[in-house]
Amino acid sequence: MLAQYQFQSAKKIVAGRHSIEMLASQLQEMGEVRSALILTQPSLIRLGHIDEMVQKLSKAGISSEVLTGVMNEPTVQNIEELGQKLATQDFDVYIAIGGGSVLDAAKILSVLRTNCVPVSELLGTNLVKKPGVRTVLIPTTSGTGSEVTPNAIVTVPEEELKVGIISLYLFPQLVIVDPILTLELPPAVTAATGMDAFTHSIESFISNKANPLSDMFALESMRKISAGIVQAYEHGSSVEARENMLLGSMYGGMALTCAGTAAVHALAYPLGGKFNIPHGVANSMLLPHVMEFNFDAISEKLAQLFPVLGLSASNSLSEVDAARRVIEQIVAWTTTLNIPQDLTAFGVSEDDVLDISKSAMNVTRLLNNNPKAVSIEDVQEIYRKLLP
Amino acid sequence: MLAQYQFQSAKKIVAGRHSIEMLASQLQEMGEVRSALILTQPSLIRLGHIDEMVQKLSKAGISSEVLTGVMNEPTVQNIEELGQKLATQDFDVYIAIGGGSVLDAAKILSVLRTNCVPVSELLGTNLVKKPGVRTVLIPTTSGTGSEVTPNAIVTVPEEELKVGIISLYLFPQLVIVDPILTLELPPAVTAATGMDAFTHSIESFISNKANPLSDMFALESMRKISAGIVQAYEHGSSVEARENMLLGSMYGGMALTCAGTAAVHALAYPLGGKFNIPHGVANSMLLPHVMEFNFDAISEKLAQLFPVLGLSASNSLSEVDAARRVIEQIVAWTTTLNIPQDLTAFGVSEDDVLDISKSAMNVTRLLNNNPKAVSIEDVQEIYRKLLP
Repeated sequence: MLAQYQFQSAKKIVAGRHSIEMLASQLQEMGEVRSALILTQPSLIRLGHIDEMVQKLSKAGISSEVLTGVMNEPTVQNIEELGQKLATQDFDVYIAIGGGSVLDAAKILSVLRTNCVPVSELLGTNLVKKPGVRTVLIPTTSGTGSEVTPNAIVTVPEEELKVGIISLYLFPQLVIVDPILTLELPPAVTAATGMDAFTHSIESFISNKANPLSDMFALESMRKISAGIVQAYEHGSSVEARENMLLGSMYGGMALTCAGTAAVHALAYPLGGKFNIPHGVANSMLLPHVMEFNFDAISEKLAQLFPVLGLSASNSLSEVDAARRVIEQIVAWTTTLNIPQDLTAFGVSEDDVLDISKSAMNVTRLLNNNPKAVSIEDVQEIYRKLLP
Repeated sequence: MLAQYQFQSAKKIVAGRHSIEMLASQLQEMGEVRSALILTQPSLIRLGHIDEMVQKLSKAGISSEVLTGVMNEPTVQNIEELGQKLATQDFDVYIAIGGGSVLDAAKILSVLRTNCVPVSELLGTNLVKKPGVRTVLIPTTSGTGSEVTPNAIVTVPEEELKVGIISLYLFPQLVIVDPILTLELPPAVTAATGMDAFTHSIESFISNKANPLSDMFALESMRKISAGIVQAYEHGSSVEARENMLLGSMYGGMALTCAGTAAVHALAYPLGGKFNIPHGVANSMLLPHVMEFNFDAISEKLAQLFPVLGLSASNSLSEVDAARRVIEQIVAWTTTLNIPQDLTAFGVSEDDVLDISKSAMNVTRLLNNNPKAVSIEDVQEIYRKLLP
């Protein structure tokens, strides 16, 4: 546990079923909002959500323009191109409604508009100099928790890397978390993004930077996700399960803001950067294996998760047995949720292991948070678990 | 449970043992802070905390002036007089270090300085028109949670009332919660303020406006306070117990921001307004009796608190039995912590009961949150429990 720790989040959170209905009135409360950019993705336009939003904003006296074109896990170039389109336009607020990629893109575009430097100069921690255009973030997946973090991730294809922009200026003015918007999420996306959110929380909980505040968010996140994930996967229309997942994902974002993630994320980045494996999928594939690797360093903490995951036993269990049961539950989810367990399906082969292991070893920012030291041999061994 | 709910808090929270050491660097990070007003209380000056702060700020290039004179539970006139002193001075930030009264005073003084209207025009909800001077709030009691709420309470003696100013502009820029600063708190204050914080959380948890976010904060608050309160009372130098209490108090503030308090607070206001009973004492006196009154409406929720309060039983308990045990624990704390149980010691007599009951019935903002309807006869009966 760190002696000192810090917490910061979105300025305001509006939550609950149909809370999207409050968007216009919340913008009016923010003050001086007459025009809005709506950054979104085609699937939400098809579902009719965006037309409805434009009309409701218009009734409230707010003009809006819709922009799409954010890639899945956007590249620096993709963001630069979108930035060009916005360079000569003034909007009072950027509204992002979509998955983590759309939210991250809006966070970067907002500071790009005011800082007037190439994206490449913002890559890293605290390199953004000025506040951006105010943002409103509305997640439609339950995974990244991006709506409450100071992080935005971009892909740098020429270096086969994913890199973070970390800045307090990336926090939004307003977050709306409405589970109704997540009802249409397909099962495979529900599974991968949900396990991604769980990964944020369990990594924050075992992080060397864990603290009482991050623990509160991490534990409540894991309670909600454990209660919701199988139900949300099998019965996507369950609003209760979707609400558990969306809150669990947001709390996961709060936990990682406060304590950081660790080795799972470090090993996931090269899989995204080089093989385009979606972030949530890479994390969920790696999770059980990295936890197994960490086991002897974290068994006391894992044991604490036994009741949090809703597990019960007829007899009282030893610490190690309880911890073991927690790992088994994570493995069981991997099976139930059909999380891929074979990297060859994504084009990874034994020949790539050394290369991606070297890349992972470079993500020291996250590896430093891992409760157990990780060698390049350890990393290779973990990747090989996913090469049957 | 409400369908929709909102959350907002301090812009940034810095926490942990000796986190006060981070004040100067945090102010530098805030930007454009060259002068600070330090609003505090004489006891902290005597302990040497303030001299040290002034020197450290000076080394960081920040000039500061110290102001005392905030009454316990300040009156409108007291705030006006302090406001006069500040009317012609410009400080980049107001730092408040002290108990709930000092924190509340700083919150009001900050908006008074920029809004230039009498305090009386700010009494109520959302009547503050402009943001105030930026504030940094550093609690030295574990009770009000004022550091993370949009509320400030003043006494209106001519009406024998306590009234709230509720405004989003009262949220501070920065909160520092350092348990080391609370080590000197005398046992009686530890007890009353600690039970006050517990009251915030249990009332938020049973409130008609309770929601998943407020529940997370309320439950974690009750976990921390249950783990810390007796230890903090009996062994005030236990940093661990003090840390539990300070976090429990802050989470209680977050819970009440999100869900509101209820009948305990409504009945406490007239005791403060007319008989100057300290807010924490009034709340802790009333708590077990109001919970007893509410019992049949909240037994399911109380039963959920059984493990949260660290209670255990050899056999599984019925819901009602578990709820009963929770009430018994609250009563047991009242005894262990020597919470007064006799209003006559504060000058209240049977002749006053009707009057104060009428006053309490006027606090509809809070009574509306109570899970059970409260009649004036109910209120009188509750007060009479404290008139042996």
